[in-house]
Amino acid sequence: MLTFHIKGLNNSLRPALQQKIDSLAKPKGSLGRLENLAMQIGLIQNTLTPKLTNPVNVIFAADHGIADEGVSQSPKEVTRQVVFNFLHGGSGVCFLARQHGFGMKIVDGGVDYDFPPLSGLINKKIRKGTRNFLKEPALTQEEMEQAFQAGADIVSECHAEGSNIISFGEMGIGNTSAASMWMAAILKRPVAECVGAGSGLDEEGVRHKTRVLQRAMNRYSGSTDPFDVMRHFGGIEMIMAVGGMLRAAELGMIILIDGFIMTNCYLAAFFINPFMREYCIFCHCGGEKAHRKLLNIVCAEPLLDLGLRLGEGSGAVCAYPLVDSAVRMLNEMHSFEQENITKYF
Amino acid sequence: MLTFHIKGLNNSLRPALQQKIDSLAKPKGSLGRLENLAMQIGLIQNTLTPKLTNPVNVIFAADHGIADEGVSQSPKEVTRQVVFNFLHGGSGVCFLARQHGFGMKIVDGGVDYDFPPLSGLINKKIRKGTRNFLKEPALTQEEMEQAFQAGADIVSECHAEGSNIISFGEMGIGNTSAASMWMAAILKRPVAECVGAGSGLDEEGVRHKTRVLQRAMNRYSGSTDPFDVMRHFGGIEMIMAVGGMLRAAELGMIILIDGFIMTNCYLAAFFINPFMREYCIFCHCGGEKAHRKLLNIVCAEPLLDLGLRLGEGSGAVCAYPLVDSAVRMLNEMHSFEQENITKYF
Repeated sequence: MLTFHIKGLNNSLRPALQQKIDSLAKPKGSLGRLENLAMQIGLIQNTLTPKLTNPVNVIFAADHGIADEGVSQSPKEVTRQVVFNFLHGGSGVCFLARQHGFGMKIVDGGVDYDFPPLSGLINKKIRKGTRNFLKEPALTQEEMEQAFQAGADIVSECHAEGSNIISFGEMGIGNTSAASMWMAAILKRPVAECVGAGSGLDEEGVRHKTRVLQRAMNRYSGSTDPFDVMRHFGGIEMIMAVGGMLRAAELGMIILIDGFIMTNCYLAAFFINPFMREYCIFCHCGGEKAHRKLLNIVCAEPLLDLGLRLGEGSGAVCAYPLVDSAVRMLNEMHSFEQENITKYF
Repeated sequence: MLTFHIKGLNNSLRPALQQKIDSLAKPKGSLGRLENLAMQIGLIQNTLTPKLTNPVNVIFAADHGIADEGVSQSPKEVTRQVVFNFLHGGSGVCFLARQHGFGMKIVDGGVDYDFPPLSGLINKKIRKGTRNFLKEPALTQEEMEQAFQAGADIVSECHAEGSNIISFGEMGIGNTSAASMWMAAILKRPVAECVGAGSGLDEEGVRHKTRVLQRAMNRYSGSTDPFDVMRHFGGIEMIMAVGGMLRAAELGMIILIDGFIMTNCYLAAFFINPFMREYCIFCHCGGEKAHRKLLNIVCAEPLLDLGLRLGEGSGAVCAYPLVDSAVRMLNEMHSFEQENITKYF
């Protein structure tokens, strides 16, 4: 199994960073969370003058066997349809990526469709969708490891292309079901607490989804090991994101954490190697019901709370300007001394 | 007295805007507050394809007589020092304005200093600081009206230069004291409830500030009329912002509301002409203690909550990318139909 060598942050620069932040001509602490971000990014890059280069949003797409149980508002074909929309630049995250200068990588991890060769679509297909985890494990051990490796490989490519800040997104009808199972299994929480409306189920739909997922959980061994959980429930796109996050941390990249699905990928990655946390910025609290609870459990206070629940990395990309602001603060603000301003604290 | 003819929004386009938003290829409502912003901006501009042009941040600077009572952590000279830092591009809002493509107007409304003619500094000085409102009214009726008019005039210039979205900021040592008095007087709230630490007072400092402001309130007539309040307590920069906000609404511009001081200016403007509200976007909840309470009273849920308490319009400019995202959503996202995506709601 692939392992990752993730360095804890070197805190020796912390006092100098704090001194620099406090020397800037503003009431102490008055740039709030931008100051915390500046500290984190300064430590990740081990410099008083950090830079953000070639931000990229990687979207992993794959299908889910559990979708056959009617757990989603959306039919399975939507996965491939939205992949085409990514390639056409018309989806929600596309305008955000253009707005904020993000590159995009669209990865077919396991969509249940034979795409022709398409410019812009990266073929890493493991299989055409996971197996239905109500009946059998979603993936074999080998398939799971392949997905894990493929996600890490994509991130290595992004890094080689000059990116030092990365967000992850997903597209996969049925993946809030898989994510809820990850949360319930890894944290040993009641299934019902982890389930939400996904792309828009009504109350009866959520009740049905909860019953299906409870039955699936009853058939599960109960192991909290992230690899067992990932193999048993899938999805392929989520496992790729876990591998991707861990590789990104290994490479010292800044990781932007998106919504409910990606926070579950973070959860698995954290239990695989907790040092990855220090590289992560939690970007938004999504509209999916269990997301706030999960964020509280992992002690994360995201930057935005705008009721987004689109996935695709949209919340992460949306928060990027704040991260950029923190870096600009460090590099562009003048100090009290430089401006001969009476230091007022 | 200057009056403003502010049109209520024309709601006839609302159904068409909602239909357009719902036709975009995403789960219904899944772009959360971006969808609400898109609706508001579409109505303000009365179009399905709004545009943001030449965003500008106007900073009004002025001094406060009440600063002589030791109500601020910062000495009065900081007002003019920070004005120089604005002109040098080194303050907190400067890097944000560069980041988000904002123009900047720096207006000397009443700084207690004789600036030489300086490129980039707009001279609208009414007087060198307000009078100390602990002892006498801050301004005469004539001075107050001059300031009100001057703020409106600046906005007319911005509009003539092609701006359709504007934020307001302030610089003035002592102005959280004036703002607290506006809140207490207009809303008839206890002074203590409206007072906070400003640029960084300690507990004893806040107690002293509260005592001073309570004494000042005891000497006040108790009128809740915004013009009486503005004249009695100042500051000049805040009155200019009130005039500016009202003119901006009259001209159909989008108004970005910054922190505690600017929310009090909004409060006064709203009581002068409540139609201005529909043109306003509340951008952030600041770190000043009474800000959340004031936002609750005016039923505003700001876009950001990052603990900023810098002023200068920084929180408003910081939130701009979200407003831009809402507009891009309307203009750039593809529809279900356009992409042949099964409509999944």
